[in-house]
Amino acid sequence: MSREPRLVEVRKNVLKQNDVVARELRQRFRDAGVCVVSLVSSPGAGKTALLERTLTLLHPRYRVAALVGDLATENDAARLRRSGARVEQIVTGTVCHLEAAMIQRIIEGWELESLDFLFVENVGNLVCPASYDLGEDLRFVAISVTEGEDKPLKYPTIFNSADVALVTKLDLAAAVDFDRAAADANIQAVRPGMEVVHLSARSGEGMDRFLALLERQLAETRAARVAGRAS
Amino acid sequence: MSREPRLVEVRKNVLKQNDVVARELRQRFRDAGVCVVSLVSSPGAGKTALLERTLTLLHPRYRVAALVGDLATENDAARLRRSGARVEQIVTGTVCHLEAAMIQRIIEGWELESLDFLFVENVGNLVCPASYDLGEDLRFVAISVTEGEDKPLKYPTIFNSADVALVTKLDLAAAVDFDRAAADANIQAVRPGMEVVHLSARSGEGMDRFLALLERQLAETRAARVAGRAS
Repeated sequence: MSREPRLVEVRKNVLKQNDVVARELRQRFRDAGVCVVSLVSSPGAGKTALLERTLTLLHPRYRVAALVGDLATENDAARLRRSGARVEQIVTGTVCHLEAAMIQRIIEGWELESLDFLFVENVGNLVCPASYDLGEDLRFVAISVTEGEDKPLKYPTIFNSADVALVTKLDLAAAVDFDRAAADANIQAVRPGMEVVHLSARSGEGMDRFLALLERQLAETRAARVAGRAS
Repeated sequence: MSREPRLVEVRKNVLKQNDVVARELRQRFRDAGVCVVSLVSSPGAGKTALLERTLTLLHPRYRVAALVGDLATENDAARLRRSGARVEQIVTGTVCHLEAAMIQRIIEGWELESLDFLFVENVGNLVCPASYDLGEDLRFVAISVTEGEDKPLKYPTIFNSADVALVTKLDLAAAVDFDRAAADANIQAVRPGMEVVHLSARSGEGMDRFLALLERQLAETRAARVAGRAS
């Protein structure tokens, strides 16, 4: 079709502009020593439940904040604020992903130095967020056991844009005859060597590994900050 | 941002072009007397399982075919072909939705008159498919009980683009403490009067209502064909 090249060209410009803003954000986050972690998944894979538990577990020991993206409603922000953390909602309207400029706008005036972790929950979507760098240090892609073991094969791009895979709702694994070996094999097929954490925000299983991973990343982010200052 | 108006303009042209092709498709489907039914949902909400059961149940009595959209893999088509129906896979690459032109291309040369039902399973996505008319008679939007009752509020556009809502995986309702009244209220909040069918492709519960709805639509499609010929 004749319209495709023009649309592709416009999209490329949008992505290029996003990359410029994401680079600026990443530098700003690094200078402030804040560890920025993003979550992508299908709608209903349990991002908010995981974040709720994570914020509650981290809150006494670390200074945490979160940004949550949705097409509509402020529900997730209201739910997450109960953890005591600072949480802001980004309402995207009809846009199927967060963009670096949306993050930049919402954190305007924030004192990032006063934070250890900033979590970014993307719009529920296994396609669109793949192309948009948000300046994060670590991107998790989550699939729930109820979605089926084949999802990595069907949505390879998002697995390739992420750093670590999460398999969520582990407490429902038996109820849906979840085949862990098949899911793991499919993740490794699209992204050989990818680290995978199986967990349940409801039962708490696997949360220790998830938190250890976050703390490891925080240490790396801080080491990079020190290295940046020394150079 | 300065780039937005241009992107919006290009998107509008794409949508307008899609509408033209969808109109042609709808006329072609109507002339052939084939009832075209599409399914949209999140990844892993159970579209393929529902379609598998539906094709198997309809196959002895009706002439059925299906088109299935995915970013990658031919898995769904292979799975659905076991029902004995003609099934074709549409691989979209990085595109997050089906478009009317994709349908038009894949059914080129088909004798649509030899079909009663043509099912179209969209890419798993609760955002992007909303804007693309595929020329179908009936569009179902499905949410599974495991996704949470709030999804209609968070993805209102897709509920407004669909004719009937399905609540799938009803066999898991107890395991996830699914609140049926809350889900129904949220659907009605974004789309007052919307018809809702609760079902499980696994247990078979609610399949009779779903099939009755399909047969009602087939009767309407055929009545419209007769009316079209008489005028």
